[in-house]
Amino acid sequence: MDMGMLSEGLTQVLIPAAALVGIGFALLQWLMVSKVRVSSDSVANNGYNDGLIEEGEEEEEAVDNLDVSIKCAEIQNAISLGATSFLFTEYKYLSIFVGVFGAVIFLFLGSVKGFSIKSEPCTYNPGNMCKPALANAVFSTIAFLLGALTSTLSGFLGMKIATYANARTTLEARKGVGKAFITAFRSGAVMGFLLAANGLLVLYISINLFKLYYGDDWEGLYESITGYGLGGSSMALFGRVGGGIYTKAADVGADLVGKVERNIPEDDPRNPAVIADNVGDNVGDIAGMGSDLFGSYAESSCAALFVASISSFGITHDYAAMSYPLIISSMGIVVCLITTLFATYLFEIKNVSEIEPSFIRQLLISTVLMTAGIAMVSFFALPSEFTLYNFGTDKTVKNWHLFFCVAIGLWAGLVIGYTTEYYTSNAYSPVQDVADSCRTGAATNVIFGLALGYKSVIIPIFSIAVAIYVSFSLASMYGIAMAALGMLSTIATGLAIDAYGPICDNAGGIAEMAGMSHKIRERTDALDAAGNTTAAIGKGFAIGSAALVSLALFGAFVSRAGINSVDVLTPKVFIGLIVGAMLPYWFSAMTMKSVGSAALKMVEEVRRQFNTIPGLMEGTAKPDYATCVKISTDASLREMIPPGALVVLTPLVAGTFFGVETLAGVLAGSLVSGVQVAISASNTGGAWDNAKKYIEAGFSEHAKSLGPKGSDAHKAAFIGDTIGDPLKDTSGPSLNILIKLMAVESLVFAPFFAKHGGILFKIL
Amino acid sequence: MDMGMLSEGLTQVLIPAAALVGIGFALLQWLMVSKVRVSSDSVANNGYNDGLIEEGEEEEEAVDNLDVSIKCAEIQNAISLGATSFLFTEYKYLSIFVGVFGAVIFLFLGSVKGFSIKSEPCTYNPGNMCKPALANAVFSTIAFLLGALTSTLSGFLGMKIATYANARTTLEARKGVGKAFITAFRSGAVMGFLLAANGLLVLYISINLFKLYYGDDWEGLYESITGYGLGGSSMALFGRVGGGIYTKAADVGADLVGKVERNIPEDDPRNPAVIADNVGDNVGDIAGMGSDLFGSYAESSCAALFVASISSFGITHDYAAMSYPLIISSMGIVVCLITTLFATYLFEIKNVSEIEPSFIRQLLISTVLMTAGIAMVSFFALPSEFTLYNFGTDKTVKNWHLFFCVAIGLWAGLVIGYTTEYYTSNAYSPVQDVADSCRTGAATNVIFGLALGYKSVIIPIFSIAVAIYVSFSLASMYGIAMAALGMLSTIATGLAIDAYGPICDNAGGIAEMAGMSHKIRERTDALDAAGNTTAAIGKGFAIGSAALVSLALFGAFVSRAGINSVDVLTPKVFIGLIVGAMLPYWFSAMTMKSVGSAALKMVEEVRRQFNTIPGLMEGTAKPDYATCVKISTDASLREMIPPGALVVLTPLVAGTFFGVETLAGVLAGSLVSGVQVAISASNTGGAWDNAKKYIEAGFSEHAKSLGPKGSDAHKAAFIGDTIGDPLKDTSGPSLNILIKLMAVESLVFAPFFAKHGGILFKIL
Repeated sequence: MDMGMLSEGLTQVLIPAAALVGIGFALLQWLMVSKVRVSSDSVANNGYNDGLIEEGEEEEEAVDNLDVSIKCAEIQNAISLGATSFLFTEYKYLSIFVGVFGAVIFLFLGSVKGFSIKSEPCTYNPGNMCKPALANAVFSTIAFLLGALTSTLSGFLGMKIATYANARTTLEARKGVGKAFITAFRSGAVMGFLLAANGLLVLYISINLFKLYYGDDWEGLYESITGYGLGGSSMALFGRVGGGIYTKAADVGADLVGKVERNIPEDDPRNPAVIADNVGDNVGDIAGMGSDLFGSYAESSCAALFVASISSFGITHDYAAMSYPLIISSMGIVVCLITTLFATYLFEIKNVSEIEPSFIRQLLISTVLMTAGIAMVSFFALPSEFTLYNFGTDKTVKNWHLFFCVAIGLWAGLVIGYTTEYYTSNAYSPVQDVADSCRTGAATNVIFGLALGYKSVIIPIFSIAVAIYVSFSLASMYGIAMAALGMLSTIATGLAIDAYGPICDNAGGIAEMAGMSHKIRERTDALDAAGNTTAAIGKGFAIGSAALVSLALFGAFVSRAGINSVDVLTPKVFIGLIVGAMLPYWFSAMTMKSVGSAALKMVEEVRRQFNTIPGLMEGTAKPDYATCVKISTDASLREMIPPGALVVLTPLVAGTFFGVETLAGVLAGSLVSGVQVAISASNTGGAWDNAKKYIEAGFSEHAKSLGPKGSDAHKAAFIGDTIGDPLKDTSGPSLNILIKLMAVESLVFAPFFAKHGGILFKIL
Repeated sequence: MDMGMLSEGLTQVLIPAAALVGIGFALLQWLMVSKVRVSSDSVANNGYNDGLIEEGEEEEEAVDNLDVSIKCAEIQNAISLGATSFLFTEYKYLSIFVGVFGAVIFLFLGSVKGFSIKSEPCTYNPGNMCKPALANAVFSTIAFLLGALTSTLSGFLGMKIATYANARTTLEARKGVGKAFITAFRSGAVMGFLLAANGLLVLYISINLFKLYYGDDWEGLYESITGYGLGGSSMALFGRVGGGIYTKAADVGADLVGKVERNIPEDDPRNPAVIADNVGDNVGDIAGMGSDLFGSYAESSCAALFVASISSFGITHDYAAMSYPLIISSMGIVVCLITTLFATYLFEIKNVSEIEPSFIRQLLISTVLMTAGIAMVSFFALPSEFTLYNFGTDKTVKNWHLFFCVAIGLWAGLVIGYTTEYYTSNAYSPVQDVADSCRTGAATNVIFGLALGYKSVIIPIFSIAVAIYVSFSLASMYGIAMAALGMLSTIATGLAIDAYGPICDNAGGIAEMAGMSHKIRERTDALDAAGNTTAAIGKGFAIGSAALVSLALFGAFVSRAGINSVDVLTPKVFIGLIVGAMLPYWFSAMTMKSVGSAALKMVEEVRRQFNTIPGLMEGTAKPDYATCVKISTDASLREMIPPGALVVLTPLVAGTFFGVETLAGVLAGSLVSGVQVAISASNTGGAWDNAKKYIEAGFSEHAKSLGPKGSDAHKAAFIGDTIGDPLKDTSGPSLNILIKLMAVESLVFAPFFAKHGGILFKIL
């Protein structure tokens, strides 16, 4: 078996270099965003705020600048404080979970061989000696903690950047759409590059540190590294669910009283829940999503590394080939950097209608460039021929096979992105049809919206199926893992596009709260409408990659558990399959009900304030924002426990009591069912939101015939929008994590289940 | 291998005897219903109508009897004519489909061995000689035609009975709830017994006729009999989809203009779509459902018989044991007969609140009695020990194993029924919570309703899983088929309960249209509310049994296609699995969009009539009912083609181009995903409907605080109800047929796919 052309030394340099370039680029973008000054006496005391707005820039709206800027700063400060305080409270609770779950990992894995400290012959390469089982328990736990920490950091950094950027976007909107767009987009890029680079760097460092102990035992090394993915995803789960409940309880609650009962605009400062709503965007859509995509990235890397370690790369100790997944990610950072330069310098946005095409162009550019990048990496890092572990047998694979695996994942992602755009953007007929159905009321709007969501599943599923078939056939489970990494290789661009949405949403909120003019609000609304579509695209990527990641983890689990087939025609597997397919429904029932109940509480509080605070409606008295923030905080922290427990406990219960076959069924069932629920939920929600915005904006004759704001059709559209909120921002995106987390957890605990699992069947 | 105690001769007598008893009982019930006289000059010219109402009965509402009765007769006649004419049009189209598809079956199966007319050694019992492949093609086609015919007949008979009973129920409602209830229930029983007995009898006769040719070749005989199931299910598919679109287009269209815009009551005779709406109940909920459950029954019998024929029963030619599935169904008819006697004579309904408990009691009684019946049949008909074909191996099974298989299916059905009742009846907290969420508007109502539907999936799936595990472990695929038959063994009672709902719905409509008093309308409303729950229970049974039936068919398909495992860890199977799991979404998108579009057309027409016909709102002019009937008819016939094609073509395309492994994946995926979508859709819809009825009825303090009719909460509830219409009556129940039909079609075409399938992979 020959080796690739890339030497170990060069690999050791290239990976951290790419990560550092990514971080540097993020800082540069941040520097540019920071040039937009936001200040107020109450916030800025550093003496550097020499001006409220940039000098020398042409101002379209120069009136009340001082006032507006101070107000913006105040609001930004309130949002940032609320988000920080929520995340800290959340992390306090999660640290308990991490502690307990870390102990469980240690105890379960340690117990497999009775906490033995004896070295043993390796499982897949019996000629070598491997480190003792206890080491696996210890290092898996450490990797878990590192993953949890990195995930937390990713979410927190994302939130900080977004709350830094929101008011700046608002202020730039005074100068025009283009300025506001570039600010929001740059801030998204800060987050995208920081997270991608950070994830790569921590993984790279961890592997090298673990290697100090493991030395030649790569099997043990990469087995324990899988804990990194588990840590990342567990934090992501609670981040998505908790954040999702927070944001939608506030959003739905604020809208139901404010817009419907009191007939005041969205984000009106008189609405007591308005701050909670804007905080929610940052803790849910930003921090949650950051953790989620980081988790996908960590897991697909871990799955690929694990399979590689028991294949010829691992056995012949070919470091460059072994690092192939990391090099692909490094290349991804470079490609995204080039893409961002195109977006920020080459194509300037002058008009609202150019925003969506610009994103679509970026996706295409990054995909095309990355395809070339993958070809390079596959050619240099991989030997021309090698073998991969394939459920008990060896499979001979060539380097260009792997090029196809990664590339097909990447292109499948593009297809999913385009499909999502088609179904959720109000530039195309699906959303326009939904808007049109509002003529006959909310019921037809909901029927058409649900049908749209169901329909939007078809193309993504076919493209995932093709990606799976090709990569699975060419390179078995390693191929799937690499296809997932291919889809995620342009994660920096994907995250940038995704983060853009909530930033603009917040920017609009700040404009409204700061009492800025109607024109500014129109601009931020338009930016926000594009943001809905990009958010849906981001979710499409997240779920598409989650499907591939889960399948790869599933394959790795099956390999590690020592079973060589998962036959549907056995009762153990089949009951797993059907129960697994049910789990996304159970989970969604919990999260949607949670949002509903929390929103009802919020409604009561908002109503109470409107009824009891004199002068609130007239704008002479200030609402009590803090109580609403507290309701969202308490509700989300309390309500995230049952769905979290469902996801975390299912693999443990299924594996321990029913054994690895049933657990394999559960994983396959939840994967194939969850992916449908997730895609349809996010697209339905996105479409409803944009159908409403389509009527509000009234850009076409058709749209005008449905509007204006306050018309019956608009009211019907608004109901759909509210229903879509928990679907697209809570239950839908959380399902990615359900399927990923159950798979990675099974992988980590596989040795335990293989040894002690299936108690119930053993008794019967 | 010993034989059971039941001789062939006795078996040959018992089965048709039970069927005839069932038919006789149905006729007796019909006779009792017919005693309620409905007459009008325009309808009855037979001279026998000596009185408009029964003499000697105490009348609570004696005013305007003649007028009211004539009106009722007219309306009944209009509904019956509309339904008959729609079904005839539908059957005309379907006869073309049946002809074409029959030819496809003949050609595909004939081509397997080049239309050979040579006898060959049997596949599973190579010592014997089996009939030529051409015979299989011919008899499969004949069986298909017979199944299609019986299914059509079942649907048509059901519709005739229901349209015969609806006005009678209305007229009896004048005498009190008890009288009306018993009329509706007896009519349901006519349908239940007639269909159950009819299905059994035709199958029995077909087998005996086929035997004249096949003689000792039971393998070939029961292979070709599977065509019967295919015929039954294809008709059921179009019946459910076409009928479902018909009924909901009319219902939604009528409500959106009548109730919402014009503020006139449901079923008001001024509404032009009102006749179409009532016709729809009969062609959708009655005829469609009749075909559906008949299909389930036919398919589970065929699946069991096929597996038995290649097991020791078939090889040793043990006729009684071979007929075990038919004897179980015969016993079911007897048990249901006894149960019905309990219901009609022992427990008299005096009060509305007794209706639901009475149904629940009947389910329990029939289940308990049937358990004893199963034990008897298993003991007498089966040898104490025998072997079953189990994917290439033989499995030794004892007769009490089979008792458990059938009994667990039966009891799983009861659990599903109870769970459905809990989630859809407004006597319990789930629906009351949904009603309560209407306080804050339609959006929260929809969020809570969707969450309720998702949650209602949990218990049914666990009970299906337990039934599958037990029956699969004990008796492999034969066990699953028998569990399905166990669940369906009390089909006569199940259908009676299910048919009760639409009959009462129609009765309420007739009361309103005939201008009967508020009191009568209240009574029929109360009967109808119970009917919503029973309809949901019926759908629960239908989907539960469909899941088991599909799995049994799936097993039979795999056996016939000659593959011994369906390994998820192969790319061919996995892509089938994920695409299969997507199909229910694709299918639902089509059917929901169809209902939506057809309803929009109906809305336009109804609006047009209100706007252009002078005096319509004042009641001085008559609306043009016929145009609305035509809109529903045209829409449903046109719109049923794409979803029908999806279901019918998928197995053919998957099998021919991708081969049996991918097709097996598709079947498993659509099964485990479809069952969730179907259960959640019907329960969500049922819950919304009853939440609305809960607010309208105002029986409790809580309900009163939400009402009355026309309150904001009621309006919100009404929106949920309308959204639920296509979910519970079109897309949800059609999914049963999607999963069953694809499985039975795969089974019938298995030899073709095994021989010629997988073209695409062969080329690649």
